[in-house]
Amino acid sequence: MRANYKMQRLFVESDLGEGTRMLLATDQAHYVANVLRMREGGEILLFNGRDGEWRGRIEAVAKKKVEIALVEQTRPQTPPSDLLYCFAPIKKGRLDYLVQKAVEMGAGTLLPVITQHTQVPKLGIDRLQANVIEAAEQCGILSVPHVEEPVKLEKMLENWDENRQLIFCDEAAPDNNPITALERLKGRKTALLVGPEGGFSESERKMLHAADHVTAIPLGPRILRADTAAVAALALVQAVIGDWNS
Amino acid sequence: MRANYKMQRLFVESDLGEGTRMLLATDQAHYVANVLRMREGGEILLFNGRDGEWRGRIEAVAKKKVEIALVEQTRPQTPPSDLLYCFAPIKKGRLDYLVQKAVEMGAGTLLPVITQHTQVPKLGIDRLQANVIEAAEQCGILSVPHVEEPVKLEKMLENWDENRQLIFCDEAAPDNNPITALERLKGRKTALLVGPEGGFSESERKMLHAADHVTAIPLGPRILRADTAAVAALALVQAVIGDWNS
Repeated sequence: MRANYKMQRLFVESDLGEGTRMLLATDQAHYVANVLRMREGGEILLFNGRDGEWRGRIEAVAKKKVEIALVEQTRPQTPPSDLLYCFAPIKKGRLDYLVQKAVEMGAGTLLPVITQHTQVPKLGIDRLQANVIEAAEQCGILSVPHVEEPVKLEKMLENWDENRQLIFCDEAAPDNNPITALERLKGRKTALLVGPEGGFSESERKMLHAADHVTAIPLGPRILRADTAAVAALALVQAVIGDWNS
Repeated sequence: MRANYKMQRLFVESDLGEGTRMLLATDQAHYVANVLRMREGGEILLFNGRDGEWRGRIEAVAKKKVEIALVEQTRPQTPPSDLLYCFAPIKKGRLDYLVQKAVEMGAGTLLPVITQHTQVPKLGIDRLQANVIEAAEQCGILSVPHVEEPVKLEKMLENWDENRQLIFCDEAAPDNNPITALERLKGRKTALLVGPEGGFSESERKMLHAADHVTAIPLGPRILRADTAAVAALALVQAVIGDWNS
């Protein structure tokens, strides 16, 4: 949505600071040299999740090697988002989408949650983390969300941090206005739980409603796909109690 | 998100009423007979956007012919949504997505708007309308949104209905809380305008800000893709002044 955000951004592992010169990793060097076709003198933004964002200048381009010298820090490091995003993995294409959207919408940690209706045989955490990094590069954030190992819903609730309120999207939520429900959570640490396609089972819904530190919010009269519900719920959370409200 | 919504729903053109017997159109007959592999006695939900939703019973299945007898009306017709959704067409895959999401989120009319950064050589209205129908079948609505012919942004603003407030997503919106901005529009007819990837041009932003009946809302500190911004903005509009707030 920002017209003026055009410079290429790359996430790197190495430290970034005054006078740093560095070689890009092989795949990134390939991308910069052969896909973007950038050459000596080209500029690029780099971040590593710790040292803020830096403008770098390409010093040398060889076949599989791109050397960059940092010119200046363009933005100081921002703290990581505290929003925990718990999601039931869905089918591949839509899962990538779900992860990207969570990053754009400001999730801090992504926790895959296995529910009764979850149908994902093998969840590639590395693939999810790569998706997170790509989304972070595109949406301009400086802190890269972390993808946790999957956990079963029951286990998650058993070990729940009582200082954090879990918000879940429930079609039969008692409160008929999601904004009013969220306003009551102002100032608290929060997590959002998004169910699988097909929703939570009846026993899961009961378990969630019976648990402490859980707030159910409704998302209107229509049936939403899991990925739509995720973005919609994140928008409400950010606008009412998150970083869109500052 | 609804666990209990399992019966197949089909949009049909023909009238639906007590005692109606009907043949499905060829492509739908193929879908029911050969993809779903439904047989005599199977039940299906039908709607046409005028006569509510009806439960039908499959009476006969032949190669390209499926005959259905209506059993009972399951839901009365609901009025169409009054929310006008104006969107700059984006690239194909994401455009389908944008349209589906708008339907799920309760748009009533979809108006493609050509902006300076819009890059879509040929917009297939028929394809968009087919996408709308598929989304309507899935998300359980009874009134099918209509896709209008594309219009240029300037023309749209020139001919704007003064009884309707146009909400647009602007990264530099004066109001720093989208909810407060939306609350001022309670009771008014509304439209939402979502820009293209790359955003509006500076002159377009000026034109929008200078126009009457336009409200700019911010969508947080991160760069959102057009399709993410669309769902996020629709969620806020529905929750604050739309049909999630009833």
